[in-house]
Amino acid sequence: MAPKKGILERLDAGEVVIGDGGFVFALEKRGYVKAGPWTPEAAAEYPEAVRQLHREFLRAGSNVMQTFTFYASDDKLENRGNTQRFTGEQINEAACDLAREVADEGDALVAGGVSQTPSYLSCKSEEDVKAIFKKQIDVFVKKNVDFLIAEYFEHVEEAEWAVQVLKTSGKPVAATLCIGPEGDLNGVSPGECAVKLVKAGANIVGINCHFDPETCVKTVKLMKEGVEKAGLKAHYMTQPLGYHTPDCNRQGFIDLPEFPFALEPRILTRWEMQKYARDAYNAGIRYIGGCCGFEPYHIRAVSEELEPERGFLPAGSEKHGKWGTGLELHTKPWVRARARREYWEKLQPASGRPFCPSMSKPDCWGVTKGHAELMQQKEATSKEQLKVLFDKATQNA
Amino acid sequence: MAPKKGILERLDAGEVVIGDGGFVFALEKRGYVKAGPWTPEAAAEYPEAVRQLHREFLRAGSNVMQTFTFYASDDKLENRGNTQRFTGEQINEAACDLAREVADEGDALVAGGVSQTPSYLSCKSEEDVKAIFKKQIDVFVKKNVDFLIAEYFEHVEEAEWAVQVLKTSGKPVAATLCIGPEGDLNGVSPGECAVKLVKAGANIVGINCHFDPETCVKTVKLMKEGVEKAGLKAHYMTQPLGYHTPDCNRQGFIDLPEFPFALEPRILTRWEMQKYARDAYNAGIRYIGGCCGFEPYHIRAVSEELEPERGFLPAGSEKHGKWGTGLELHTKPWVRARARREYWEKLQPASGRPFCPSMSKPDCWGVTKGHAELMQQKEATSKEQLKVLFDKATQNA
Amino acid sequence: MAPKKGILERLDAGEVVIGDGGFVFALEKRGYVKAGPWTPEAAAEYPEAVRQLHREFLRAGSNVMQTFTFYASDDKLENRGNTQRFTGEQINEAACDLAREVADEGDALVAGGVSQTPSYLSCKSEEDVKAIFKKQIDVFVKKNVDFLIAEYFEHVEEAEWAVQVLKTSGKPVAATLCIGPEGDLNGVSPGECAVKLVKAGANIVGINCHFDPETCVKTVKLMKEGVEKAGLKAHYMTQPLGYHTPDCNRQGFIDLPEFPFALEPRILTRWEMQKYARDAYNAGIRYIGGCCGFEPYHIRAVSEELEPERGFLPAGSEKHGKWGTGLELHTKPWVRARARREYWEKLQPASGRPFCPSMSKPDCWGVTKGHAELMQQKEATSKEQLKVLFDKATQNA
Amino acid sequence: MAPKKGILERLDAGEVVIGDGGFVFALEKRGYVKAGPWTPEAAAEYPEAVRQLHREFLRAGSNVMQTFTFYASDDKLENRGNTQRFTGEQINEAACDLAREVADEGDALVAGGVSQTPSYLSCKSEEDVKAIFKKQIDVFVKKNVDFLIAEYFEHVEEAEWAVQVLKTSGKPVAATLCIGPEGDLNGVSPGECAVKLVKAGANIVGINCHFDPETCVKTVKLMKEGVEKAGLKAHYMTQPLGYHTPDCNRQGFIDLPEFPFALEPRILTRWEMQKYARDAYNAGIRYIGGCCGFEPYHIRAVSEELEPERGFLPAGSEKHGKWGTGLELHTKPWVRARARREYWEKLQPASGRPFCPSMSKPDCWGVTKGHAELMQQKEATSKEQLKVLFDKATQNA
Repeated sequence: MAPKKGILERLDAGEVVIGDGGFVFALEKRGYVKAGPWTPEAAAEYPEAVRQLHREFLRAGSNVMQTFTFYASDDKLENRGNTQRFTGEQINEAACDLAREVADEGDALVAGGVSQTPSYLSCKSEEDVKAIFKKQIDVFVKKNVDFLIAEYFEHVEEAEWAVQVLKTSGKPVAATLCIGPEGDLNGVSPGECAVKLVKAGANIVGINCHFDPETCVKTVKLMKEGVEKAGLKAHYMTQPLGYHTPDCNRQGFIDLPEFPFALEPRILTRWEMQKYARDAYNAGIRYIGGCCGFEPYHIRAVSEELEPERGFLPAGSEKHGKWGTGLELHTKPWVRARARREYWEKLQPASGRPFCPSMSKPDCWGVTKGHAELMQQKEATSKEQLKVLFDKATQNA
Repeated sequence: MAPKKGILERLDAGEVVIGDGGFVFALEKRGYVKAGPWTPEAAAEYPEAVRQLHREFLRAGSNVMQTFTFYASDDKLENRGNTQRFTGEQINEAACDLAREVADEGDALVAGGVSQTPSYLSCKSEEDVKAIFKKQIDVFVKKNVDFLIAEYFEHVEEAEWAVQVLKTSGKPVAATLCIGPEGDLNGVSPGECAVKLVKAGANIVGINCHFDPETCVKTVKLMKEGVEKAGLKAHYMTQPLGYHTPDCNRQGFIDLPEFPFALEPRILTRWEMQKYARDAYNAGIRYIGGCCGFEPYHIRAVSEELEPERGFLPAGSEKHGKWGTGLELHTKPWVRARARREYWEKLQPASGRPFCPSMSKPDCWGVTKGHAELMQQKEATSKEQLKVLFDKATQNA
Repeated sequence: MAPKKGILERLDAGEVVIGDGGFVFALEKRGYVKAGPWTPEAAAEYPEAVRQLHREFLRAGSNVMQTFTFYASDDKLENRGNTQRFTGEQINEAACDLAREVADEGDALVAGGVSQTPSYLSCKSEEDVKAIFKKQIDVFVKKNVDFLIAEYFEHVEEAEWAVQVLKTSGKPVAATLCIGPEGDLNGVSPGECAVKLVKAGANIVGINCHFDPETCVKTVKLMKEGVEKAGLKAHYMTQPLGYHTPDCNRQGFIDLPEFPFALEPRILTRWEMQKYARDAYNAGIRYIGGCCGFEPYHIRAVSEELEPERGFLPAGSEKHGKWGTGLELHTKPWVRARARREYWEKLQPASGRPFCPSMSKPDCWGVTKGHAELMQQKEATSKEQLKVLFDKATQNA
Repeated sequence: MAPKKGILERLDAGEVVIGDGGFVFALEKRGYVKAGPWTPEAAAEYPEAVRQLHREFLRAGSNVMQTFTFYASDDKLENRGNTQRFTGEQINEAACDLAREVADEGDALVAGGVSQTPSYLSCKSEEDVKAIFKKQIDVFVKKNVDFLIAEYFEHVEEAEWAVQVLKTSGKPVAATLCIGPEGDLNGVSPGECAVKLVKAGANIVGINCHFDPETCVKTVKLMKEGVEKAGLKAHYMTQPLGYHTPDCNRQGFIDLPEFPFALEPRILTRWEMQKYARDAYNAGIRYIGGCCGFEPYHIRAVSEELEPERGFLPAGSEKHGKWGTGLELHTKPWVRARARREYWEKLQPASGRPFCPSMSKPDCWGVTKGHAELMQQKEATSKEQLKVLFDKATQNA
């Protein structure tokens, strides 16, 4: 068998790369991840559940199996009271093995992932924070993943440090922040963030989590503009939420009153996902995946939308009529009448919740305002100032 | 190991029996069932996916593993253009084996299930329809399931026939209709329906699918009143949708414009499920499960609500802080403030969809009106008359 | 000048009679009525304001000028702390003069109106309650109004007493209750209520206030069925709210949390009023007007909808292009495109209030439930029992 | 009697000046103005109706009676097909007489008003446009109004011309644009607009119509910042819509699908008006009134909110318990419980419209986009370019 093409080969060739969806939220609903800690010990504890989810995303068209290592840094596992039978190393290793096993069942690459650390937020030194990343990366190198992703960073500074460590592996590196169009929590704009990440060595930059697809595509566009204006080059990716969040403040869905246990009415339909895939593609984004809230059928919708560009449908489309055509045989004629694209594209779905509003007010306007003031002052670019702000904000809350 | 207590032993003893959730919709989202046909060939084709879902429900607290044999009668499989590698017998057998395998991993029983047939709707004879049921039941007897369920019937007459065949097995029989408070599609009231089913031999009667939990509990109450008024005895069960459907007409969620691909904003939260479990329990219902839209975390919510009555939590609660207590360690104080029952109970979740309405108008008011007229005339109790009505309705649509 | 045709001549001839709108709410917004007391002393205090509103309704097509004497019985004026310069008699007389003055400017009749009394609710004797009505009627006879209306009664018994007194005048009598399809507050069904009123001598029966047009038309249909089933004859009228109230309990809009100061998002558009007029007409109702929330343009919409039946437009249509045709000259083409019936008929207007729900829960479910229980017992038909219920309900609240 | 204090005396002394509400929309609902043309011939045709509305606003606390001369320039009256019995001069004169008559009944000033002209939009010369304004102003001078208002301008250039003409009268001049935070239709920012108007001679600058109170206050803040930054001085005023319009594009409520005949669900409550009055006051605005959608009770709410600052309540508050205290005597305890500020302040009113969305999409995104592009190019500051843009936009629509 010919070796698979690497991530950069694919992107350089203009191919679409489809990411996977959010493991943490999906496995929470299946009973294997605890909301609050959100740690991935299930990779070692319940491998069959993690393997199955990998397979579903592969079947839905994913070209990347991300190791289920979110929040699997040693400091986070400790911080979240990990009293499991497994060490951080064991969890990271098990996650690599599962990703590799399923990746090898199809045309997918394995990506090792690191995410933001409690060490950074508690103002540990650059050296200390980098040591945390290094430990996870040692596993990824040992297990020979195909490339690396630094994801879910709220401060570009920490993401830069992560990229610098990941680059030492010699593997391609992607970096995504969980920020919106207003920039990172220090007030650095998306364009500036992207430039910093590219300069730190990232081959692919973009956004994941915290905001809905529309907002994430918009933010990646700003990153792209920044990179191009600086005369640099990069590939772009998005892995947004599978939830509508037009009412978020700059810190994203965590501040919405519905987070994390009443987000159901916000879940995107498969048709809204197709719109996302098209919008992302039109924005020049070629690595298109999802984060919290994305289920396998959402990724399948991305694959189906981009069939013309990719030239094929995913295996999972065997069980899906595009644009609802599976309804053509229904006994009721008015249900058969739904077996077409126009129907689903123009449908405004009802919530069945007449006592509920359309929009929520985020819990924490204060911090937002604080940040806004900070941004205007253009002074709070250091980690220490950030800490002061957070302390103040959390005391007032 | 002592043999497990049977379904009637449990119910007679006043125990709560927790059902499972909806396989068809859950597996559709995972990529293994095709919307439209909705047939369960995945039991034979992708056993690991079906096994995994069984395990998740078991872990969530289910005491019953229903064989994944919905729409697995020979006439339905043919009708839906089954061109798979597997015969109906193979599918039914594989489904029994998977259910048994997982049931034996915990305290669960296996229930073989049959559902409404195209043969009945096309006015085949009682003999022909019963022969269809018999074929599935032969497999269930051979595989020695613990009890049987006739579910998803819109006409009580067909359900009675099914119960009569199921009773020949000598096993306990449950029967659920997919009707609302207005009665079956012939205009037979829920109370009358229940009496007919009990007289036909059903030990447990109730409602599944088509309507939201609130509506289903209300309908089962009407059934219970009817049975008690008739001086009969039965146990009661509900397996409702996991979707809010206050805007349905009498034929349920199928006529809603969002069916089946844009129901997301209607999905119940875990807290709404706890309310359902409590309401069902208070109504005297002791077999409490779910149907389309129920995911494992919904069943876990039922188990958690009924912990006081059952005396224990399910295995899956290892990964769940009751009433959101997993948030207690969150870094943001306003998120920590959500780690309590009052917060989630009173929250009215927003849809994040300001361009969408709260309620939809079902596509088919005509049929509804036709049925209403029919009910007033009290003449359309025969299958033939029903057929005329349907033909008329579908021609006008 | 030929004398005007009387109310019964018109209705007997099959003509449409258009009522007026709600003075109390309209004048509250204009600054002349106090919400809470809702008494009509403005008839004497600010005659120019009351005269102007009469003229606007006349211009909108009203054939009836109701005297502004709502809550103008002596017991009510006292009860509401009337400390004005005017006696009840003066208020009633001034109201008659204003109605007559404007009625004579066009083709309108004057109707003297009485409404429910505190005396009844505090269980005064039939004799005492009738004496209250008698006092107002003496004024109406002296001022020679054209016919009489007993309106806004929650208990048919009190309405019957009112009709009996009104009949002594020798003038035609209309009687409207403020109840919904579930019947009056003693649990008497709309059909029974209507029969009682006709037997008491009412020539016209129907519904006013408390519920939206859709509900009121539905309730009048039930009244009509009752009357016809009893082999009696009557004319029918509706004067509903100008507010959408699908979420009311049986006591109507007073229990909605928005009553009376935040009902704005519920106000009907002129197009919704046209639908009401058509529905009322199709239901066999020929006296079609409005109550609280109806402004002059709402009555004009009723007149415009019924132009084909009446054969003419009202004077006020001089300033209104039917179905939005006044927009035909707009400079923006997309606004010109709104100058047509289909546009306005299918428009689902947005509230511009994304943080607000569609539906409210009435404040007082308890009383509703109490009433429901009462209705089932079919025992609470006496005024004394009602008082007990109310006392109980209000103590629990 | 001592002469009244002039408008500038009041504002210079720091007094609050309360404006009136929107005559055009209020009189349309009363039957005296035609939607589409929106011209004010009723001043001459139906003086009693116009006088009554003036009185209601006076009673509600207005310190300014604006002459009902909106769209009463000769070119507009012609353009709108004025086939009435009255000349433009007669209409303007009648409007002045009515405003003066009612102003003299209380502590109010008369303001003569001019608004944007078709002549400007059709690219007539500065001289021609100014001649149009001059004709109206001659009437205002003859009738000796107290001050002048140039209002409802979408292009600051035309407003400057108007101010220059108004200044020739020697009277104080106010100028309000109907723009949002994004600036006028040529892309001139609110701050720049305000500076231009002040330099042209306006004593008071601000915003009227087209947007909801929240948006207008925000825009006036931007104007104030601009004026202060330029080292200039002015007084500030707002006269916003009485409708919620969070979903507008830059051209305001005209592009909303509900304009002008289905805006009802958007109407502000009196409590929302109190919030507006407070916000405007806190923003340093001292001339606070309303435009389309404001009814007399809305102005009364402004007066009641600012009672502490003004030291008195308006006459109309005789018929209004502040914060709902008129409900204290209600028979139902749960209605009495609403007689307090907290209740109404926190209430999120329901629409009673479960089939309607919260937000609409403006009809005309194309023009918006065109304007946006234009703004980026910073080239379209001339009237000619604007005309090209409009022609293009309207051809595409």
